[in-house]
This record gives sequence, C-alpha cells and structure tokens, in this order.
Amino acid sequence: MMQEVLYIIKIGGNVIDDDESLKHFLRDFASIRGKKILVHGGGKMATSLGNELGISSKYFEGRRITDEEALRVVTMVYGGLINKKIVALLQAEDCNALGITGADANLIPAHKRVVNEIDYGWVGDIEIDSLEPKKWKGLLDQKLVPVVAPLTHDGKGNMLNTNADTIAATLAAALAVEYKITLVYCFEKKGVLRDVNDSDSLINKLTIQKYHQLKEGGKLVAGILPKIDNALMAVEHDAYQVIIGHSTQLLALIHGKEGTLITK
Amino acid sequence: MMQEVLYIIKIGGNVIDDDESLKHFLRDFASIRGKKILVHGGGKMATSLGNELGISSKYFEGRRITDEEALRVVTMVYGGLINKKIVALLQAEDCNALGITGADANLIPAHKRVVNEIDYGWVGDIEIDSLEPKKWKGLLDQKLVPVVAPLTHDGKGNMLNTNADTIAATLAAALAVEYKITLVYCFEKKGVLRDVNDSDSLINKLTIQKYHQLKEGGKLVAGILPKIDNALMAVEHDAYQVIIGHSTQLLALIHGKEGTLITK
Repeated sequence: MMQEVLYIIKIGGNVIDDDESLKHFLRDFASIRGKKILVHGGGKMATSLGNELGISSKYFEGRRITDEEALRVVTMVYGGLINKKIVALLQAEDCNALGITGADANLIPAHKRVVNEIDYGWVGDIEIDSLEPKKWKGLLDQKLVPVVAPLTHDGKGNMLNTNADTIAATLAAALAVEYKITLVYCFEKKGVLRDVNDSDSLINKLTIQKYHQLKEGGKLVAGILPKIDNALMAVEHDAYQVIIGHSTQLLALIHGKEGTLITK
Repeated sequence: MMQEVLYIIKIGGNVIDDDESLKHFLRDFASIRGKKILVHGGGKMATSLGNELGISSKYFEGRRITDEEALRVVTMVYGGLINKKIVALLQAEDCNALGITGADANLIPAHKRVVNEIDYGWVGDIEIDSLEPKKWKGLLDQKLVPVVAPLTHDGKGNMLNTNADTIAATLAAALAVEYKITLVYCFEKKGVLRDVNDSDSLINKLTIQKYHQLKEGGKLVAGILPKIDNALMAVEHDAYQVIIGHSTQLLALIHGKEGTLITK
C-alpha cells in the first residue's frame, strides 16, 4: 500500500533567535505541499530570560539540567513565546499551524528521566510505543500543521523538558507505520561534514554501515553524533529518509539537492 | 432539533495564583461530563514576572496597555506557563486537554484595537462572526477539551492580548448555533451581589430587563458591570444561560444550585 508522505522538520536555536532568518525559514516551510510537522528547539532565549530573572542555566555534557525554576522558564519560553511566535507567523503565511507541547491532547507522554549518576531534573524521556499515531493522524487529517515545542509531560501533572532532536526522531519512528516519512534536521551547517571547518567536506550520503566506519575511524566530530544517532534511530524504525542540512536551504533539502541523506 | 450541551467555563486570576485552589477547581472541571471548554485569565503572574524583568504593567480603566515588551510577557505567561500548567494538571485527571491560543489553528482571529483616545497597544478585539464553529466542533468531536489562553492574533504574524471574559462570551455567542451553551464565569465572589460587602445579598436571577433596572437605580458596583455585559452579549446571541459564581463551587454552579443565573 502506498503510504502518504509526511515531512517532519526540525529547526534549532540559531534560526529562532534571528527574526529575518526565522521568517525566511517559515515561508519555505509554509510552501511545502502536503502533510507536515514542525518541531522547534529553544534558542538562546531561555538562557537569556533565565539570566534576566537571575536563574543561571546548568548543563552536564551539553544537556540542560532542569530544576524547578528552569522548568518554569522553558515552559514559558518554549511553550509560550517561541511556539506562539512561530504559529502566528505561519498563520500569516496561510499555514494552519497548531502549537502544541507533548502535554496537549497527551500527544507525547513521557517519563521523568531516571536518576543514575546525574539528576537531570525535570527532563522527559519518551518511548516510541507510547505515542499514538492515530491521534497525530486525526490532527493531520484536519489539515492542521502541528508545531511542537520541546516539552512533554509525565501524566502526573508535571511538564518535562525534552530535547527537540529526540522528539523529531521519535515522531518519525512512531509515525512511520502511517506515513512515508522524510525527517529533516535543519541547523547552521550544510550537513554532516568530514571536516567541521571545511564546508566543502560535506558527506552526501550516510548509511548505518558507513556511519560506523567513519565514527570508528574518528572521522566525525563529537557534536554531530547525537543528531546522527537520532537520525539512525528513525530510519531503523522505518522512517523513509533523514536529511541533515542548513536551515536556509529547506526546499533544496527536501528535494534531495543539498545536505546529507541518511538511510538504512 | 435537540442541541448537544456545551459548557464554557472561565476562571480568573485568583484561582490560578494558588496551586491548591487551582487543583481543586481543575478536579471539578475534569469531572464534568460531556463537551466543555476552559478559558483562563492571567492571574498576577504576568505582572510579577514583568516586575522581575523590570517591565512595569500599564493600565487604563482596568485594562492592561500592551506594549511590545508586555506582549512578550503575556505570551510567555498566559500562552506558556499558565496554559501548560493547566493542561498538564487536567491530563493527570484524565481530561484530554488541548492548550490553545486564538492563533492556534486560527481558532480566534482578531484585529488590533483601533486607536481612539487611547492606544491600548497589542490588544485584540474579536468579531463573533469571524469564529468558525465547525473548527471548534472538529476538536470537540475528537473528545478534546480546549484550554484557551487569553491571547488572539491578527493574521499578520502578531499575537494580541485579549480579555478572557470577552473570549469566553464570544465563544458562547459564536458556538450557540451548534450547541446548547452554559457559560460559567468563576471568580472570587458568590455571584452578582446587591451589596459587594454582603455575601448574603446574592442576586439569584438576572434578566436583561432586571439588569437595566438595577443598573439605572445604581444598585450594582462598577466592577461587575463588564462581566454582566459579556454575559448578556452571550445570551442575546442565544447562549442558553450564563452563571456567575465562586470558583470553589463549580459543580453546584453548573447544576444551578449556586451563583447568579443570567438569561434573556
């Protein structure tokens, strides 16, 4: 049976922090035909608002540690300020955006991360099986375009801070039973580079096998690894393809003309 | 034709500012059978966050003047912090809440208030006819419970600050073509009082005619008038009934055992 195409696009912080870049990106996104979901990250706004309020951000291995106060800030900034800004701008482009967090309609149930060596605080981990594809289909069939903030909930009344890359990959994995998924990670580079300082060193195609060769050969910088791991998780769960590339090239990316293509 | 019942419940600031009161109220709300919508106000959180950020709230005749900075604060606090807190708590009560603003799915299109003597800034006014009942029905038919933050948008990419009482009344008026509407205004008094200092002076029933008699006789305090005007606007547009009463008595209010009942 032919599956319908679904685009899941993730944008990160740098685009969100710059009004002109964001508007350009959202115009491109709005112009994509068919079913689509946008997942957005947090940008530097949460950090700067936290600073203004005298709350300093704590990190461990690049992951934010979310105490009670930090959760309050990210709920405001991700779920309110950024999510509604994007929704209002997409509506102005005739794209029928519906801003959500994982708590809304219980779309992304999660659980508070188990404390091992580190207590990450109010951070949510998601199981692919806990997402209900039919719920997402219900929204998409109404021609709504979900705009997902990087927040989930524990089902016990608490919001949880959750990595946007992980949300995008988990959505791609969970919805692959219903749709032919193209997951696009947009960020500030042209794709996966052999040499992070040389934008001509773009890797055009990456498979699981090739990834492990490069990784074991020390050919990939550490910063890109979590993104590729997320991408591979999605394709292992039958997402059709993942593309990693620059946020200014969204339309070229989805047409396979730019970026790094990741398949099984 | 028998219309299906729809409850539209509005809660104001005082309940939102107190965790225990809020949880009690939301448990009551979650227990209401059938179709329902919750509209929430802002509470003092926007003011206190504004103060923390060095943004002082400006008011004119009880209405907040919303400059660029204030819009940023209310979008965060109303659309993010308060809305998602309520959604997460309702989900914990097995109530399938979907938090929205008027921008989401373009559910409440508005226009920036026209500047006459005063420039209210980024404040939105709504026309009843601009709401599409079918869109709301689409959500309610999926057994979703919309939780509406007091924010709308102008369709040009800007969020707008909008009075929650007005949103609730406009929804009641617009959805009366589809549903038999009970609109409930919950606040910190038992209902409309003849003497604001005497909680035994509750007016049990109010009609348009009786209201004008009381108002002309100077029998009503100014503070309650906008709420009654909103209530009457709803019943004039065929909302079945409006009830004004105390937020601790939600279930008694919807069963007509407490509060002030307002009908045509």
